[in-house]
Amino acid sequence: MNLKAGILGATGAVGQTFIRLLDEHPCGWLAGTPMPEGVAGLTVQECAPDAFDGCDFVFSGLDSTVAGQIERAFAAAGVPVISNAKNYRMQGDVPLLVPEINPGHAALIERQSWGDAGGDGAAGTAGDGGFVVTNPNCSTVGLVCALAPLQEAFGVEAVQVVTMQALSGAGYPGVPSLDAVGNALPYIGGEEGKMASEPHKILGTLADGGDVQHMNFPVSAQCNRVAVIDGHLEAVSVRLTSEPSPAEVKEALRSFTPATDGMDLPSAPEQFMRVFEEERFPQPRRHAGLGGGMTTSVGRVRSCPVMGIKMALLSHNTVRGAAGGAILNAELLAKEGRLEPRASRRDVGVS
Amino acid sequence: MNLKAGILGATGAVGQTFIRLLDEHPCGWLAGTPMPEGVAGLTVQECAPDAFDGCDFVFSGLDSTVAGQIERAFAAAGVPVISNAKNYRMQGDVPLLVPEINPGHAALIERQSWGDAGGDGAAGTAGDGGFVVTNPNCSTVGLVCALAPLQEAFGVEAVQVVTMQALSGAGYPGVPSLDAVGNALPYIGGEEGKMASEPHKILGTLADGGDVQHMNFPVSAQCNRVAVIDGHLEAVSVRLTSEPSPAEVKEALRSFTPATDGMDLPSAPEQFMRVFEEERFPQPRRHAGLGGGMTTSVGRVRSCPVMGIKMALLSHNTVRGAAGGAILNAELLAKEGRLEPRASRRDVGVS
Amino acid sequence: MNLKAGILGATGAVGQTFIRLLDEHPCGWLAGTPMPEGVAGLTVQECAPDAFDGCDFVFSGLDSTVAGQIERAFAAAGVPVISNAKNYRMQGDVPLLVPEINPGHAALIERQSWGDAGGDGAAGTAGDGGFVVTNPNCSTVGLVCALAPLQEAFGVEAVQVVTMQALSGAGYPGVPSLDAVGNALPYIGGEEGKMASEPHKILGTLADGGDVQHMNFPVSAQCNRVAVIDGHLEAVSVRLTSEPSPAEVKEALRSFTPATDGMDLPSAPEQFMRVFEEERFPQPRRHAGLGGGMTTSVGRVRSCPVMGIKMALLSHNTVRGAAGGAILNAELLAKEGRLEPRASRRDVGVS
Amino acid sequence: MNLKAGILGATGAVGQTFIRLLDEHPCGWLAGTPMPEGVAGLTVQECAPDAFDGCDFVFSGLDSTVAGQIERAFAAAGVPVISNAKNYRMQGDVPLLVPEINPGHAALIERQSWGDAGGDGAAGTAGDGGFVVTNPNCSTVGLVCALAPLQEAFGVEAVQVVTMQALSGAGYPGVPSLDAVGNALPYIGGEEGKMASEPHKILGTLADGGDVQHMNFPVSAQCNRVAVIDGHLEAVSVRLTSEPSPAEVKEALRSFTPATDGMDLPSAPEQFMRVFEEERFPQPRRHAGLGGGMTTSVGRVRSCPVMGIKMALLSHNTVRGAAGGAILNAELLAKEGRLEPRASRRDVGVS
Repeated sequence: MNLKAGILGATGAVGQTFIRLLDEHPCGWLAGTPMPEGVAGLTVQECAPDAFDGCDFVFSGLDSTVAGQIERAFAAAGVPVISNAKNYRMQGDVPLLVPEINPGHAALIERQSWGDAGGDGAAGTAGDGGFVVTNPNCSTVGLVCALAPLQEAFGVEAVQVVTMQALSGAGYPGVPSLDAVGNALPYIGGEEGKMASEPHKILGTLADGGDVQHMNFPVSAQCNRVAVIDGHLEAVSVRLTSEPSPAEVKEALRSFTPATDGMDLPSAPEQFMRVFEEERFPQPRRHAGLGGGMTTSVGRVRSCPVMGIKMALLSHNTVRGAAGGAILNAELLAKEGRLEPRASRRDVGVS
Repeated sequence: MNLKAGILGATGAVGQTFIRLLDEHPCGWLAGTPMPEGVAGLTVQECAPDAFDGCDFVFSGLDSTVAGQIERAFAAAGVPVISNAKNYRMQGDVPLLVPEINPGHAALIERQSWGDAGGDGAAGTAGDGGFVVTNPNCSTVGLVCALAPLQEAFGVEAVQVVTMQALSGAGYPGVPSLDAVGNALPYIGGEEGKMASEPHKILGTLADGGDVQHMNFPVSAQCNRVAVIDGHLEAVSVRLTSEPSPAEVKEALRSFTPATDGMDLPSAPEQFMRVFEEERFPQPRRHAGLGGGMTTSVGRVRSCPVMGIKMALLSHNTVRGAAGGAILNAELLAKEGRLEPRASRRDVGVS
Repeated sequence: MNLKAGILGATGAVGQTFIRLLDEHPCGWLAGTPMPEGVAGLTVQECAPDAFDGCDFVFSGLDSTVAGQIERAFAAAGVPVISNAKNYRMQGDVPLLVPEINPGHAALIERQSWGDAGGDGAAGTAGDGGFVVTNPNCSTVGLVCALAPLQEAFGVEAVQVVTMQALSGAGYPGVPSLDAVGNALPYIGGEEGKMASEPHKILGTLADGGDVQHMNFPVSAQCNRVAVIDGHLEAVSVRLTSEPSPAEVKEALRSFTPATDGMDLPSAPEQFMRVFEEERFPQPRRHAGLGGGMTTSVGRVRSCPVMGIKMALLSHNTVRGAAGGAILNAELLAKEGRLEPRASRRDVGVS
Repeated sequence: MNLKAGILGATGAVGQTFIRLLDEHPCGWLAGTPMPEGVAGLTVQECAPDAFDGCDFVFSGLDSTVAGQIERAFAAAGVPVISNAKNYRMQGDVPLLVPEINPGHAALIERQSWGDAGGDGAAGTAGDGGFVVTNPNCSTVGLVCALAPLQEAFGVEAVQVVTMQALSGAGYPGVPSLDAVGNALPYIGGEEGKMASEPHKILGTLADGGDVQHMNFPVSAQCNRVAVIDGHLEAVSVRLTSEPSPAEVKEALRSFTPATDGMDLPSAPEQFMRVFEEERFPQPRRHAGLGGGMTTSVGRVRSCPVMGIKMALLSHNTVRGAAGGAILNAELLAKEGRLEPRASRRDVGVS
């Protein structure tokens, strides 16, 4: 089945990664053409559902300052929105999806109802096919890919994580070079809160017809920016219920079976998790691109005298942590029949 | 009192910082002239006590592969050695000194006896005036400057620290540029062990005539290298006995009285600790040089759901963490009368 | 004589360098206090002469988009303006001043007349004491410091220069880090034109009462941005009339006597030009700060099969190339009696 | 035809790029397995022809300190050597080959005779099939790709080039990070001489049975190292005989027909030269990888008041400038029947 995808926010940093990844996507999803730079100052009115009538669904790389309103308008108009924005991630009926970990959460979309967001009196409903699905924050997703196997095998009781995040995570123009070259920044606005809460929902359990039962182990994050182009490196320490040895932790990470196994999703990496034995790995410039940027890397798994286990972790922030994660979500939804061709088509819109 | 100081390892990275800092030292300590590069391959034999007869004491910036033997030879020959090398830091009768925190540990040198290291049958003894005093590892010293006030005010129960360390900490040529530019490295050989053990001795109590009673709270370190020139940034979380609020922690850090207050040591910074309120500070390139590189900076003191308190910390690795720390140690010892002019003087040697 | 200096554009990158350099200036020139960041959006009206009545003269670090109008208003109101902005550099009666090279050009200010810029009907005249003096572009000044001795000794016939310019030259936020880290940019807007024309005026001859007779040798510039914090490195090749050898060129550079010799200007560096013999020097991070950032460095003087002579050149862009150059200009003018206390004083203003 | 390729110097920086590029080479050339790091200290004896009996030819990524002797030994033993080393580039009977420009120079190998390099009395001759073919220096090749069309269309009279070269050009460990981060280096040993001479041979004419008639226009190079990972950026200015306009130069660059057109060489890029109109392009991080690293990029073609024409140029130094260039040479030779299966085969060797 061939679907047509639009891109909201196609001129931004995340939008451009969508375009790059979709350009040769085996499903032939149409990414449209990026707006020339001079047109970047599009008004909100132009990023409207009518302009995307030819699309079966849209990816959203919109900035969070506008994503709330625009994504609501698209969902209300019956358009599935596969969003990378943070706005609806923690909303009770919106899946915060990592297909290898919690594909079942996709069922939440059956409960969504987006009302009359357009203000035109024509309320959208779930029956119209409009919904919103989200992927996690770029620093959360790598962490949760490691926590899922540990939760399954040993139980997670507490997590501490210190990030060394790449510059591309701040978009363009983003971090001024005078702050980045020969420097490190001890603060990234809003990032620590996302890392503290999103894992609880992703690893939570979805009871029939109800909300996700969130996990409640504490996650303490300290987020830093370093002079790296792509790839968030994270120093993680965890307290696990059954107090496994480092060798047992590595075995659990290596033997974890992603829920996507056997699904043939084009963007799912051959290797969900790469566990290094070399002490000097993983490194952002050398390993962020493993598995096309979708593989999570872990190294230096060892004992921690305070928490029990500590390790280094690496994840590609603009692929797995943004556009690639959203595309994998769309692939899962398509596989499950939750994305379908829409009746009326005119053109493909890009905003 | 005017003393003459020699420098062991003067051509290395630490040795050159010794030279820079001593060049305008108010005590007029003579740093000698750095060896031209072509002579860098000096043999161990030339770095011998005889060549330094004109010095009242020596600073050692030697690499740890040779520091053990050479420093022992100097001490055995009656020469006080103010060392930055790791070799004797944890030896029971060698002070691991931070003058603002544990100046009393200097008394340990009275118990030192270095025997006949020269192999010439003439045993050195403490009576000869030879001894070794050390300063902590460059990543430890900033941490311990923050822990000392917290230990005094609240009691320390556990520490987690993730470092983002500067390239200059690896010396020259040190880290290859292809490992550093646009990259971060999750491993620094030997560093995590030093951070786990040195604070226990520095914050320990010296009973009369006995050993230092080490502290025993766990310290878990994860050491990383980032593309910074000078200044180790550290993400620290601590569990404190009396569970203070972030405001109380900041107050304790700000009101701590260094033991050097009133001593007029030239290298002691006006401000022992700078506590920032701005979330984006401290930053290596902007703040490592505060107090001439001797001030420790702390920022983002806040609650940690796992440990209680977390914060960002910054310390200059080649000044406070190496040559500057050693010079401050010498200033303390001179003030206490533990460094004195030696009878025989010929020339000032530099190795 | 103690004068009071105001700073126009004090919150910008150049303005902040003015403040840092003036903070400990031996003349006690008052720099005022930088505006807090929140007030950076000052309107043009507030940067008006009335607010600076307490100043004997002002430094201008204004952006060129506003400098033209504001500097005119100050000059018209009788306030000497020592400007780093490009707006009036090439105006016939405005000195483009490098005190070591063309101090006599300062006489041009006697011809300036700024009319009624304030729009209040009260025309300003030179008799009022208002004037504008400028310093060269940050990439021009290092070049011209090398060209002046060569012109004097051999005659300059043609110049080619390729710059590798520091990030601080673009101000803050300036160059996005994603453009700078691991990258180089082959274009800096407007820069090449300034390098092609400003040397002609600086090295020109001022006939009595007339205009500066510009030089007319061609200067071809190719300006690039590289990941350096401070210090513009330039690859220069020159065709000289008398075809000197590299040794003769080095001798001319070393033996040049700056016109400021014997003037005791506090910001004039002890060494106007440093000529390196080591092939690997000069380097921005190691040598931009020589002479407090006011010394120009040259290295690798050698034969060029196309132009005759080529060399590497380095100059500190925010000190010699901006605030430091302007301060030296003010020192020259004060020495010559062209800056004097103004009668009416209220407060010191900073805009 | 399927040939087996060995790699000399497979553990070095260039050797590893050979392995990466050959790994998926459409010709199925076997690259062998890189030596584990612990075996990197191979002795010269082991890099001997006997160990490569199973190979039909070898690529050489050897360091120039050993390449001269080893490559001679292989050629003398009858093994074609496709070398990236500088040692034989300027030897009269060795082709310095850029297939798009001077494929006819390959005929030089018919004149090669390598004698009895092995010292076993069995002289090698051209009849044995052993020869050496070289590709240009990494900074030369991009330049010559631009000069070839200009020479053809307008005639080249003089060239000036200032390079901003990537760190990977120095190999690993190569440039220390303390020299690279926030810095630029004005010197690269030996580089300027290669740029001055190699273009003369590449663009020269091969008379029947004789030597290449070298061009003799002067090339003046100033070579700098900047903090870029891959991609040499060059500021080029040229004096052309027929004094074309910038528009005519761009047209000549765009319409140049590479000699490889129609040859179906797998590594020949679809676009030999990319000419940008955007002033801010080309940039190393964004464009070095164009055409799989084999396309040369040019931008900012404009008038030069000294030389006539100037432009920015970019070429990938480890692909087009090293392993990729050598592989393309091998493809040309195979196409021409100059590389053939050897009779005796045992194993594939890697040194």
